[in-house]
Amino acid sequence: MDTMELLRQVKEGRMNIEEAAEALKKLPYEDLGFAKLDHHRSLRTGFGEVVYCQSKTPGQNAEIFSHFFAMGKSVLGTRADQEQYEAVKKAVPCAEYDPVSRCITAREKPVRPRGQIAVCTGGTSDLPVAEEAAQVAEFFGARVSRFYDVGVAGIHRLFANMEQIGQANCIVAVAGMEGALPGVVAGLTDKPVIAVPTSVGYGASFGGLSALLTMLNSCAEGIGVVNIDNGFGAGYLAAQINRLAAGKEEDER
Amino acid sequence: MDTMELLRQVKEGRMNIEEAAEALKKLPYEDLGFAKLDHHRSLRTGFGEVVYCQSKTPGQNAEIFSHFFAMGKSVLGTRADQEQYEAVKKAVPCAEYDPVSRCITAREKPVRPRGQIAVCTGGTSDLPVAEEAAQVAEFFGARVSRFYDVGVAGIHRLFANMEQIGQANCIVAVAGMEGALPGVVAGLTDKPVIAVPTSVGYGASFGGLSALLTMLNSCAEGIGVVNIDNGFGAGYLAAQINRLAAGKEEDER
Amino acid sequence: MDTMELLRQVKEGRMNIEEAAEALKKLPYEDLGFAKLDHHRSLRTGFGEVVYCQSKTPGQNAEIFSHFFAMGKSVLGTRADQEQYEAVKKAVPCAEYDPVSRCITAREKPVRPRGQIAVCTGGTSDLPVAEEAAQVAEFFGARVSRFYDVGVAGIHRLFANMEQIGQANCIVAVAGMEGALPGVVAGLTDKPVIAVPTSVGYGASFGGLSALLTMLNSCAEGIGVVNIDNGFGAGYLAAQINRLAAGKEEDER
Amino acid sequence: MDTMELLRQVKEGRMNIEEAAEALKKLPYEDLGFAKLDHHRSLRTGFGEVVYCQSKTPGQNAEIFSHFFAMGKSVLGTRADQEQYEAVKKAVPCAEYDPVSRCITAREKPVRPRGQIAVCTGGTSDLPVAEEAAQVAEFFGARVSRFYDVGVAGIHRLFANMEQIGQANCIVAVAGMEGALPGVVAGLTDKPVIAVPTSVGYGASFGGLSALLTMLNSCAEGIGVVNIDNGFGAGYLAAQINRLAAGKEEDER
Amino acid sequence: MDTMELLRQVKEGRMNIEEAAEALKKLPYEDLGFAKLDHHRSLRTGFGEVVYCQSKTPGQNAEIFSHFFAMGKSVLGTRADQEQYEAVKKAVPCAEYDPVSRCITAREKPVRPRGQIAVCTGGTSDLPVAEEAAQVAEFFGARVSRFYDVGVAGIHRLFANMEQIGQANCIVAVAGMEGALPGVVAGLTDKPVIAVPTSVGYGASFGGLSALLTMLNSCAEGIGVVNIDNGFGAGYLAAQINRLAAGKEEDER
Amino acid sequence: MDTMELLRQVKEGRMNIEEAAEALKKLPYEDLGFAKLDHHRSLRTGFGEVVYCQSKTPGQNAEIFSHFFAMGKSVLGTRADQEQYEAVKKAVPCAEYDPVSRCITAREKPVRPRGQIAVCTGGTSDLPVAEEAAQVAEFFGARVSRFYDVGVAGIHRLFANMEQIGQANCIVAVAGMEGALPGVVAGLTDKPVIAVPTSVGYGASFGGLSALLTMLNSCAEGIGVVNIDNGFGAGYLAAQINRLAAGKEEDER
Amino acid sequence: MDTMELLRQVKEGRMNIEEAAEALKKLPYEDLGFAKLDHHRSLRTGFGEVVYCQSKTPGQNAEIFSHFFAMGKSVLGTRADQEQYEAVKKAVPCAEYDPVSRCITAREKPVRPRGQIAVCTGGTSDLPVAEEAAQVAEFFGARVSRFYDVGVAGIHRLFANMEQIGQANCIVAVAGMEGALPGVVAGLTDKPVIAVPTSVGYGASFGGLSALLTMLNSCAEGIGVVNIDNGFGAGYLAAQINRLAAGKEEDER
Amino acid sequence: MDTMELLRQVKEGRMNIEEAAEALKKLPYEDLGFAKLDHHRSLRTGFGEVVYCQSKTPGQNAEIFSHFFAMGKSVLGTRADQEQYEAVKKAVPCAEYDPVSRCITAREKPVRPRGQIAVCTGGTSDLPVAEEAAQVAEFFGARVSRFYDVGVAGIHRLFANMEQIGQANCIVAVAGMEGALPGVVAGLTDKPVIAVPTSVGYGASFGGLSALLTMLNSCAEGIGVVNIDNGFGAGYLAAQINRLAAGKEEDER
Repeated sequence: MDTMELLRQVKEGRMNIEEAAEALKKLPYEDLGFAKLDHHRSLRTGFGEVVYCQSKTPGQNAEIFSHFFAMGKSVLGTRADQEQYEAVKKAVPCAEYDPVSRCITAREKPVRPRGQIAVCTGGTSDLPVAEEAAQVAEFFGARVSRFYDVGVAGIHRLFANMEQIGQANCIVAVAGMEGALPGVVAGLTDKPVIAVPTSVGYGASFGGLSALLTMLNSCAEGIGVVNIDNGFGAGYLAAQINRLAAGKEEDER
Repeated sequence: MDTMELLRQVKEGRMNIEEAAEALKKLPYEDLGFAKLDHHRSLRTGFGEVVYCQSKTPGQNAEIFSHFFAMGKSVLGTRADQEQYEAVKKAVPCAEYDPVSRCITAREKPVRPRGQIAVCTGGTSDLPVAEEAAQVAEFFGARVSRFYDVGVAGIHRLFANMEQIGQANCIVAVAGMEGALPGVVAGLTDKPVIAVPTSVGYGASFGGLSALLTMLNSCAEGIGVVNIDNGFGAGYLAAQINRLAAGKEEDER
Repeated sequence: MDTMELLRQVKEGRMNIEEAAEALKKLPYEDLGFAKLDHHRSLRTGFGEVVYCQSKTPGQNAEIFSHFFAMGKSVLGTRADQEQYEAVKKAVPCAEYDPVSRCITAREKPVRPRGQIAVCTGGTSDLPVAEEAAQVAEFFGARVSRFYDVGVAGIHRLFANMEQIGQANCIVAVAGMEGALPGVVAGLTDKPVIAVPTSVGYGASFGGLSALLTMLNSCAEGIGVVNIDNGFGAGYLAAQINRLAAGKEEDER
Repeated sequence: MDTMELLRQVKEGRMNIEEAAEALKKLPYEDLGFAKLDHHRSLRTGFGEVVYCQSKTPGQNAEIFSHFFAMGKSVLGTRADQEQYEAVKKAVPCAEYDPVSRCITAREKPVRPRGQIAVCTGGTSDLPVAEEAAQVAEFFGARVSRFYDVGVAGIHRLFANMEQIGQANCIVAVAGMEGALPGVVAGLTDKPVIAVPTSVGYGASFGGLSALLTMLNSCAEGIGVVNIDNGFGAGYLAAQINRLAAGKEEDER
Repeated sequence: MDTMELLRQVKEGRMNIEEAAEALKKLPYEDLGFAKLDHHRSLRTGFGEVVYCQSKTPGQNAEIFSHFFAMGKSVLGTRADQEQYEAVKKAVPCAEYDPVSRCITAREKPVRPRGQIAVCTGGTSDLPVAEEAAQVAEFFGARVSRFYDVGVAGIHRLFANMEQIGQANCIVAVAGMEGALPGVVAGLTDKPVIAVPTSVGYGASFGGLSALLTMLNSCAEGIGVVNIDNGFGAGYLAAQINRLAAGKEEDER
Repeated sequence: MDTMELLRQVKEGRMNIEEAAEALKKLPYEDLGFAKLDHHRSLRTGFGEVVYCQSKTPGQNAEIFSHFFAMGKSVLGTRADQEQYEAVKKAVPCAEYDPVSRCITAREKPVRPRGQIAVCTGGTSDLPVAEEAAQVAEFFGARVSRFYDVGVAGIHRLFANMEQIGQANCIVAVAGMEGALPGVVAGLTDKPVIAVPTSVGYGASFGGLSALLTMLNSCAEGIGVVNIDNGFGAGYLAAQINRLAAGKEEDER
Repeated sequence: MDTMELLRQVKEGRMNIEEAAEALKKLPYEDLGFAKLDHHRSLRTGFGEVVYCQSKTPGQNAEIFSHFFAMGKSVLGTRADQEQYEAVKKAVPCAEYDPVSRCITAREKPVRPRGQIAVCTGGTSDLPVAEEAAQVAEFFGARVSRFYDVGVAGIHRLFANMEQIGQANCIVAVAGMEGALPGVVAGLTDKPVIAVPTSVGYGASFGGLSALLTMLNSCAEGIGVVNIDNGFGAGYLAAQINRLAAGKEEDER
Repeated sequence: MDTMELLRQVKEGRMNIEEAAEALKKLPYEDLGFAKLDHHRSLRTGFGEVVYCQSKTPGQNAEIFSHFFAMGKSVLGTRADQEQYEAVKKAVPCAEYDPVSRCITAREKPVRPRGQIAVCTGGTSDLPVAEEAAQVAEFFGARVSRFYDVGVAGIHRLFANMEQIGQANCIVAVAGMEGALPGVVAGLTDKPVIAVPTSVGYGASFGGLSALLTMLNSCAEGIGVVNIDNGFGAGYLAAQINRLAAGKEEDER
């Protein structure tokens, strides 16, 4: 029963106001005691469920995965370690784990990928963050092409791939140290660029601060920046944009 | 003559390699002495020309505006003051100025707006930055609706407008001080949110740093952040996303 | 013998000035060698004794606990680990330990809780800090209701509980990452809000700095901020305010 | 007509759902075009209206003052200059201005002060911030006693006044430079202390950052910190606490 | 009389130790009262004299210029304004002033330029710093070619000039905002790159900090960084390197 | 009447406790309304009175000067401008002003200087801070020798003076930019060095932060650091040390 | 086959444009899947290959080393640990490891060292960074002399070596804590100084930030700064400068 | 043979200049390969030898201790762990270790303590830093009295000891967290105060930064600040001041 139906019942006198208010409060989530799960989320945001595993115990993660999965939802866990995965695996046997991106995926049904997102990195050390972005975008229905180790210190590597990169609806550019990749990419395309600073580096990189500032100060237009190492956020935002761009054309076929 | 034609001539022996290389270098821009103008930009990025007026003299701005305008391009000047506007006005009589957003607009021809972007602010002091974003998005062809002073300290004001805000293809959320608006908005919609921290505030706002960090650390998904007070960048990125979303449906009509 | 009595003796010639001065200096504390204990504290501030366990050895903590307890005082230890607890337990058998909040409690006698404090968190990771606040407030005589995982990214969860939260005399709002919870709560109530930033987060959260700045810059009125992860300080301050509010009404019954 | 009445009409069929929703949205505020005024605020938070004048034009401030005043509300303007005051004065003749605290006050009717708040400063340079706190607290109904220039560098000045300070329900301690005053005060009382760092200082005071950090790190319990120079926030929070403490006793007389 | 001669006299008994010590102390500089001038500097470092004008009065600058010039030395003044120049001009009529770089030059005799230095900028706003670098390098005997407005946001402009840039012995790369230019240049050449961050920018550029960090964290090899806006330091260092590279080849002709 | 006398009267019954307490509170200072003056200070710290003029009006400064001077005290005003001096001059005709150090001095009687302090600076721009230190030390009875512009970039200038510098009881070393002077001086002497960072510099000097950090991190032993630009604090501390060192020898003559 | 040959074939019709473009893209590097290797690098920059080992697995490092070595190139690995070395050693038996500098060297043929670089350190703790610089410079063909523990706190140690240091073409000065060494060295020589801040220190050294700022703010001319602990970058830049200075003279013999 | 004797021999022809220069260079230190020991230090600075053990191997520390000790010098090692001590103990059997302060002391002969230094701490956690200061001062000949856990949160504990504290020639005040102790102490005495911030704390103490800034910004006069946790530096500086104050009086007995 959704909110509209509930209100109709109130109007028609089939439910009194106090009952309605109580029901309304309970509808959008259930309380597991340690975390409020939001069942309406996939309706409201149009995507599946995502769990930030890092600060939760293996048991808590397993419980959340099985709860959502039992409701027919696909679930993605980010920042998970092997131990957390094994607990989830016992509860949801179809769950899969990728140790590079540290993602656990439990797909309720296969999705047909649509549109196109490009994920680029400045160096090989940025790979874990880039893979998190890529797999999150794939979880949310996007087709993803990867262009790794194309940083600006050897810029011909970027140029050799730029035409292909530019054909995506949205580009995720991941870089640590100096963080110059997103700015150069944005100067060579008319597509939105999601910039992800990473904590790769040492000394005056100050844990990713240097790359973050570079990206925020980029002279090129068309860049949105996410938090340091936030591959998840970049993949999610890219998937949103890709869905806006790709949705209609494919729906119409 | 474009690059392809040029290469064809080389292949057919109508031009030798040295001449071709020279011509190639000159094609994409002309050199005015103090700034390299990039005529191919509107082709490459699909938009018109933008001039960052602030650090240029009135004369320089006027020269750049008239140069582009003479080539049949619309031109947008950002961070312009009254004196800079008057110099531009003399060179390009159709130029218009908005003192709040500090934008100069010289439109070569009217554009039919398409799609929908929502621009929200936390307070009334964020207006100049929000208007810059809104006018830049309009310059680049977007329809823009404005929702000002809907900050989280009186959150019912945001809620009363949220349904309308959520119908846009992309939402620009502008806030200073604590900068919480974009996170709350992103939690209530499935559309991409462009977050713009402003330098509005005092004390521990540290010139917008507080709002910037808030936005980068938002727990809600689907947020891309731009530099402090960078209304232009937000408007541009929003227009890119809006064009991806709106382009096809309207083209097909 | 208290100060007034002492002074009276001086006036009446029963004690000379030099003796009085010496006695005066010794009255308020005893010297255990490594820490000066303040017996007058519970009189002066109206509460029991609190020990910051973290930087002390198990033996030192045990000695301090038993010293105070022998004087008829309740004692609360914060930031204690299991080993420290076991040492205290041997010295003060009624001592109890909560591993989430890391508090050791040795109550000299049960207290009748009065008033009402609400403790809210943005996410489940903020729980240890919130529990420290809650248990400290309970130690100092407050009734505490808990509202965990009601952060602004899914703001309907907060709204569903807001009426109940607003009935407390004082609200402790605990949040990491963006730290927006206290500002939203303060905008929805007329009760004082104690804001506690936590170090939960990564990247540009800079160990809680982001949440701290957000809270200091909140546009909503009625917020006092404590140090990052300082659940103790928040619980103490909330208990002070609650006592001011609740004291009279209950005393009068 | 309030929300409850409105809902009753819906239930009784005197108003349809669509009309009700529209009315509901309009109830809590009116739109002046540049700022959303919140008429329900004084009900919701129990206090009058406050206007942050600094970033608004004299005309805007005058319009907001007269709008609220016409509705029978007292209005307080903070961070106002002489020019802004004169514009307000024309619109609301009973408005008064204090150039030290930079507050404009337009009282709809006199309030009988209750309870007691103490406002202390470390030095004479902290006076403008302290006066803002004091006048805000007075606007919201508190009796205020002032103890200026009692900083820790000459700590006997504080001690001579400490007994009187400790009789207040809540203490606002204002200090720049090293910012040690609130910590010392909190160690000598059992009342809540609102700490206000000021930007008074030079060099490594970094615009008040030094004082802010000192206050957040205070070893004494019972301190809530507000933003640098935020006299308004401190006065408001102190008034909230004072009302909780004083309300009942005086109401019962 | 130089140090060697002096020591010889001591050894030969023509001067006693005390006199020698006194003479030795006075030799390398004279005391004008407010500044110790170092006559030996041009011998020790092989270059002329440089005066940092900014924090000195017009009179002090004029006195220093005329003092050095009277001794047959060329003098360069940096960070000078028009008023300072006019005072110098009166004392040293051949002095010249460039308002863009803010350099005053008083050449004792023309120098034959040798070698080659390239000075590049990311944008037109970086020009004053770049010109300071260029003119300082020219003052110290280098031939300088300028490549302005070749920033990475439109990277084809850099590429069109890269062959020419790479022929210099040393490249000065000047950039504000994101500061990515030096890293890209260094990746395309085998010559040393002197990176100069500028304070051009706003918001999270934090007065040049962003560009500075970018340059220090560059992934490309062969970059030495100087202080923000320190065109002088970059020009000096480039001239030193150019002299090492060019000296011999030209000396041998 | 002093405290001892007062207590004696209490003991002898000539004064009751309440009167005594009241008198005790009033003794150490009088209240001018805007500042609490501390008459006992010169007894307690052994020096005269110092007024930080900057944040006070000319009238307030004049009142404070004349108040102290009327009590037979010498008064030193720091951070004073010409206008403040003129107001003081009218009230205390013997007052003198030095525009470099910005000190106002009103000596009640001449002091015979004793001991020896050396004040050194890295450059000529550090002069105002150094002169403040020197004049403060002279006000408090020290003999001061000055060694200006002896910074480490031309280290032979320091060496030529080092023997003389090392004969002082205490050395004040003032430097901006890199701030290396105190560390080098401390490595060449066995006397305490008071290090004063100045805000002289630009770019990454961050208002004196660079020099401050350098001094705190010095590898040489025997350095105490004061706040950026705090010439007063350095002069005061040096005078204290000098008095300890010089007092006895001279007293015994 | 190189680019020129390729273009000639296109011109002569022996290759069509599409094939040429494809070949062109593939020429400069091969794709190992996880890292794009740049075979043209040693031609373009004139040096061998360098691998940043730290963030790569032992297997990845071994693969990269053997790949390059098989192509007849010398390879240098930086920031390598013992385990990484052993994996490389198995693949390239001539590889050598230095545990202080953490460098792996696999020389394809011996190089005749030329020119002269001096590497100095402030203390013994700076040795690992200094050795990295020294061995990198030696790898790239420079003769290196070492001057360790010559910091400014005992400046006579520096002076005793300064004549020899000054004979190098380029000086690398490595220092932590206060970081004053490069500035003092630069004031005593006319050769370029590469300044390397190290993270050696504690407290307010903030992980090398203090030394970094000192070096950027140095008053002495002729200093280029690299990232904290970046011995590699310093050695590389010094080798570039040394090659410019030494190349010709030695080539001509 | 010292420098004077050497110069005399030169003058008298018993040594030629070249030999003299060589001898001069070797006199002040010997080269152990990894560290330059400075034998003249105890003459130049009047104290014994100090070794910063932390970044050296046990073997290196043992070698340095035995080297100095063999030359008849007392040696103090700071920041030493148990393993380092045991290595030193084998080489210098009379060496002693204190695990709290982490100091190794090897006294060549007993020193008669003179003068008086007071060492105070804010809390018990500051003890290791305070003990380092105390033991360093004792090593250098000072009599030390300790006042631990007298922080400002319970300020009566400080007051009860203040008379005794104020009798010292110099006061070392050690505090973490808010760091207010030195400022309060300095306001109550006329003796120099050496302020030592410690890294004790959490959250916004930022590793001691908060305490450091508090101390630098203290309103009280007569404070010199050392690096965070730098007990050694404080003890050394206090010993220098104490020697200046105490030396003469005791020498004369």
